[in-house]
Amino acid sequence: MIYNILAFFDNRKPFEQASAHCDIPCKIYDPISAQLAVLTMIRMVDLLDELKTNESLSFEQQATFNRLVSEKETHGKQVKEDIRAIWGDYIKQPQLDSHPELHKLTHEIMLAASAAKQKIDRAVTLSLLNKVNRFAEIFWQTKGVAVYQGTCPYPPTEILVYPDLKA
Amino acid sequence: MIYNILAFFDNRKPFEQASAHCDIPCKIYDPISAQLAVLTMIRMVDLLDELKTNESLSFEQQATFNRLVSEKETHGKQVKEDIRAIWGDYIKQPQLDSHPELHKLTHEIMLAASAAKQKIDRAVTLSLLNKVNRFAEIFWQTKGVAVYQGTCPYPPTEILVYPDLKA
Amino acid sequence: MIYNILAFFDNRKPFEQASAHCDIPCKIYDPISAQLAVLTMIRMVDLLDELKTNESLSFEQQATFNRLVSEKETHGKQVKEDIRAIWGDYIKQPQLDSHPELHKLTHEIMLAASAAKQKIDRAVTLSLLNKVNRFAEIFWQTKGVAVYQGTCPYPPTEILVYPDLKA
Amino acid sequence: MIYNILAFFDNRKPFEQASAHCDIPCKIYDPISAQLAVLTMIRMVDLLDELKTNESLSFEQQATFNRLVSEKETHGKQVKEDIRAIWGDYIKQPQLDSHPELHKLTHEIMLAASAAKQKIDRAVTLSLLNKVNRFAEIFWQTKGVAVYQGTCPYPPTEILVYPDLKA
Amino acid sequence: MIYNILAFFDNRKPFEQASAHCDIPCKIYDPISAQLAVLTMIRMVDLLDELKTNESLSFEQQATFNRLVSEKETHGKQVKEDIRAIWGDYIKQPQLDSHPELHKLTHEIMLAASAAKQKIDRAVTLSLLNKVNRFAEIFWQTKGVAVYQGTCPYPPTEILVYPDLKA
Amino acid sequence: MIYNILAFFDNRKPFEQASAHCDIPCKIYDPISAQLAVLTMIRMVDLLDELKTNESLSFEQQATFNRLVSEKETHGKQVKEDIRAIWGDYIKQPQLDSHPELHKLTHEIMLAASAAKQKIDRAVTLSLLNKVNRFAEIFWQTKGVAVYQGTCPYPPTEILVYPDLKA
Repeated sequence: MIYNILAFFDNRKPFEQASAHCDIPCKIYDPISAQLAVLTMIRMVDLLDELKTNESLSFEQQATFNRLVSEKETHGKQVKEDIRAIWGDYIKQPQLDSHPELHKLTHEIMLAASAAKQKIDRAVTLSLLNKVNRFAEIFWQTKGVAVYQGTCPYPPTEILVYPDLKA
Repeated sequence: MIYNILAFFDNRKPFEQASAHCDIPCKIYDPISAQLAVLTMIRMVDLLDELKTNESLSFEQQATFNRLVSEKETHGKQVKEDIRAIWGDYIKQPQLDSHPELHKLTHEIMLAASAAKQKIDRAVTLSLLNKVNRFAEIFWQTKGVAVYQGTCPYPPTEILVYPDLKA
Repeated sequence: MIYNILAFFDNRKPFEQASAHCDIPCKIYDPISAQLAVLTMIRMVDLLDELKTNESLSFEQQATFNRLVSEKETHGKQVKEDIRAIWGDYIKQPQLDSHPELHKLTHEIMLAASAAKQKIDRAVTLSLLNKVNRFAEIFWQTKGVAVYQGTCPYPPTEILVYPDLKA
Repeated sequence: MIYNILAFFDNRKPFEQASAHCDIPCKIYDPISAQLAVLTMIRMVDLLDELKTNESLSFEQQATFNRLVSEKETHGKQVKEDIRAIWGDYIKQPQLDSHPELHKLTHEIMLAASAAKQKIDRAVTLSLLNKVNRFAEIFWQTKGVAVYQGTCPYPPTEILVYPDLKA
Repeated sequence: MIYNILAFFDNRKPFEQASAHCDIPCKIYDPISAQLAVLTMIRMVDLLDELKTNESLSFEQQATFNRLVSEKETHGKQVKEDIRAIWGDYIKQPQLDSHPELHKLTHEIMLAASAAKQKIDRAVTLSLLNKVNRFAEIFWQTKGVAVYQGTCPYPPTEILVYPDLKA
Repeated sequence: MIYNILAFFDNRKPFEQASAHCDIPCKIYDPISAQLAVLTMIRMVDLLDELKTNESLSFEQQATFNRLVSEKETHGKQVKEDIRAIWGDYIKQPQLDSHPELHKLTHEIMLAASAAKQKIDRAVTLSLLNKVNRFAEIFWQTKGVAVYQGTCPYPPTEILVYPDLKA
């Protein structure tokens, strides 16, 4: 019953199964954060496009422009981080064997997120969403969870791949 | 066509409707981040409880203990931030009128998140999840979106309130 | 004298009193950080207004505009975080009983901070300061500490509610 | 009235005076943040010393130990950042001329903050507070603001140098 | 000479070449940050191993243990971020064509960094360094810069791949 | 072999030598991060100057302007942090004795970094680089490591002081 911090010979490995899956290990991965981040980028593009319809911008609108660009940037970084985390922590050999496109798809998401950050372009950002949705689809497939396509219940009302968790 | 940053007399308010809802304004709010953060806290408690079954901890297990406690802490802060953002940015008078318990519920979530951070206690953390699920339920109700209860497709396989987006 | 990490039967609760007050528990709360953050927002508005007097902005002034807007944004987030921390960690039932307006006031501070972030408007930001000062006044009252109104010793030289700690 | 971002010949320098003082320039500097951070370090040491009186630590107390150490660390970094900001942004030649000890004092604060981070030692952390209080005293002197010594109205009830803003 | 923010027909693309390389676009990529982060992880392992030689740990040594584990964790995240940034922002089709192993190598670095975070194991962390050094070697090759192997001039005095910039 | 967290009588000081050098203590200091941060600032100035050659900016170019200014700002903060860390953690009395200019040089770097943040000026930013290179030169001298001047292998192709680690 004594706490022995120097018990190096301990052979039990309580986390063995868990450590096959994640970084803590915790096993909680969900592409929804990345998907929400892309939606936010699209929303920022839409608001920027709305702003662009003005003939001129007031000082305050210029500040709004800055905040929109900055939020788009932040969420672009978020997409990269979230996808990197799933790809780099959860995706292992078994998932690569069943979905050999994962390396290429992940890399394409990185490049697409860069493009979406550098531009104010709905089509470019939507193309990022498509790739992230495809990533989500594969992810849920590796977990044996069915998916469906649903329209997100807020602007920009784009289609997301959701896990189907209804019994 | 000239960009006039000093056009303060500009009376058009392209964001008027939007600014009734959020901070950018962006309208993208989703309690799922807060829900995932609580799930992660529960998962950390489960892994800590698993660790507790050891008679003694090796140096490496002690480091694991630290990482679990630290992740639990981080996600406890996340819950508070995410709920505060929805309550403080999205919830306005109309939502308070239809759901007068929102102030009290939000405050209880803060206290419950503190308790879940200070303790390693599944019941305490589950109680936080219940409150956050209730918050999610109200949130989707204010958006006119139906919800369902589903078991999250990863450990700790607890029940979450999800929006029902399937047509 | 042996360190027993598995001593779950331990009934002593050395932090009981402390845990009634904060998140570590640490008991060190001070609204001054939130107050300084609002002052900074007002200062940014003043510098932006000064910038607005120019007929045109040089490239460098445009960069200054960006830095001012970005600092205002950052401190707007800070206000929300700081007030949320005191309200969500320190304010408990006894404080709510003696000051029933605390939920409403805290929520109003969130909305006012959003408004101050979205606009470049001295009156709006000053209104945020008034609410935060009122929050500080109540806070010190719950601690039994007298307060006084003093002019902050730097721009924007607005009035803050300070604790009176002089014997 | 036209916004001309390319007006490089613009000779007006609206911020000249301001830029003599700070980084935005904003002129809002206050050592109170650094002082509060040291107080928090002392408080963490006190709570750690309280924890040390236990013959053994439960799992939960071990987690508390971790949180206390982590908060102490965080606030140690904060002290360094806050003092560096005032010294590196606000302190210029005039202040150095009137207070030639500022370089040495600032450097000593850095070393003392390192020591306070590395140890769990009240005397070491109190020595850091003394240096930070001395820094605050000089700071207010450079602003022509009188100071007084007051006991902070929360644990660890140590003496701080406060500006005297009461008319 | 007028600043026209609505000049959407503008066909000049001053950043075209640059945008082929990075995210701002800025072209400044250097694997040295990732390499230093791994060195720090190795150093933390060495200090942890040193700590392990004690028969028992004092309260303060236990705090040191926590700080070492926490720094190791932080730098493990840093490695992942830094390598992801170069791979996801700089590596494009030409680099993939000349070095087809880049996807696999990057993914292996992610898994190795996870392992180095989860364990306190010099061999595991050294294996991460080898992969990161290999990544650096390829990186400099794609830039046409010669490299050499040098011993880093501080503990843990391991070998790094450095660019050879001496004329 | 028992882990005794309360062993305060422990007289062995395994980190004594190490604690003379750094904050963990870890001994890994390298001015390269600060040098890369200044290079990035210069690069941003160059890209901003390139942008300035346009008669007018499109919406997207305006967003690029924002991202460049924001990156310049971020790296300006980084320079300050990195230099402060070496000066405040590593530089002790022996280094001050052999290089008495260190306090003044460090302070000048802070002021120069502020100037480089506030302006879009290549000469100002280059002057910051010179000071940081001088700092690096002294730093390597205190470690007994020879240095050489090399042109950094990416834009802005400026000269850096590098350690000479080739046997």
